Amino acid sequence: MTTKDGWLNKVNWGAQDGLVPVVAQELGAGRVLTVAWMNRDALQETVDKKRAVYWSRSRRKLWRKGEESGNVQKVVEVRLDCDSDAVLLKVEQAGGIACHTGRESCFSRKLENGKWVTVDPVLKDPKLIYKK
Amino acid sequence: MTTKDGWLNKVNWGAQDGLVPVVAQELGAGRVLTVAWMNRDALQETVDKKRAVYWSRSRRKLWRKGEESGNVQKVVEVRLDCDSDAVLLKVEQAGGIACHTGRESCFSRKLENGKWVTVDPVLKDPKLIYKK
Repeated sequence: MTTKDGWLNKVNWGAQDGLVPVVAQELGAGRVLTVAWMNRDALQETVDKKRAVYWSRSRRKLWRKGEESGNVQKVVEVRLDCDSDAVLLKVEQAGGIACHTGRESCFSRKLENGKWVTVDPVLKDPKLIYKK
Repeated sequence: MTTKDGWLNKVNWGAQDGLVPVVAQELGAGRVLTVAWMNRDALQETVDKKRAVYWSRSRRKLWRKGEESGNVQKVVEVRLDCDSDAVLLKVEQAGGIACHTGRESCFSRKLENGKWVTVDPVLKDPKLIYKK
């Protein structure tokens, strides 16, 4: 631990196997875009580059959001919660699309009368977002 | 599994030991108030009572938000994310205080020049919120 990264040690990495849940909130209208995960390296890189970098639990590697799609999240503000085990990012969402389904937010399904109903439109065909 | 609780089975409870992270967002200005956790019972009760009920990982029991403080979260909308392992609640925050520190949001610390700086005011002395 150096003085420089003391802030990183204030995060409670122990609560969830070295990871913390991270909420990305769009700066303008305040829409919650995604909940993802970060380890120390991801948060460090996020702060250094002012771009959201997550930890992909499925791929078990750093996930530089927007690397493939171009839909990067420019990080304007980083917040920590009262028990230091969750992070909130205020971001500018490039392309206006955070979700791999081509929707603005990953939270596009709403509970209505006992069913999850997709209520948000696809803004761009995912096939056009993720070119091979 | 009955048809009635089919929606509950659509949530991916396996990703995080039977729990999912839950974001509570204030309905008005859209402020992110808390990130907490739910198990099946917590989400079921949240939907039934339209009041946020979480799972306290430290106390290992259901945590009916506001039970002691009166600062309940009335749930107006419940959303599920694209990979079904995170929930978003739109809530009306009673008393305008979600945090046990007496602040509106639990995300009251902001990263500024390598330090977490508390930038939100205490709206009510916690001693007055949590009476013995």
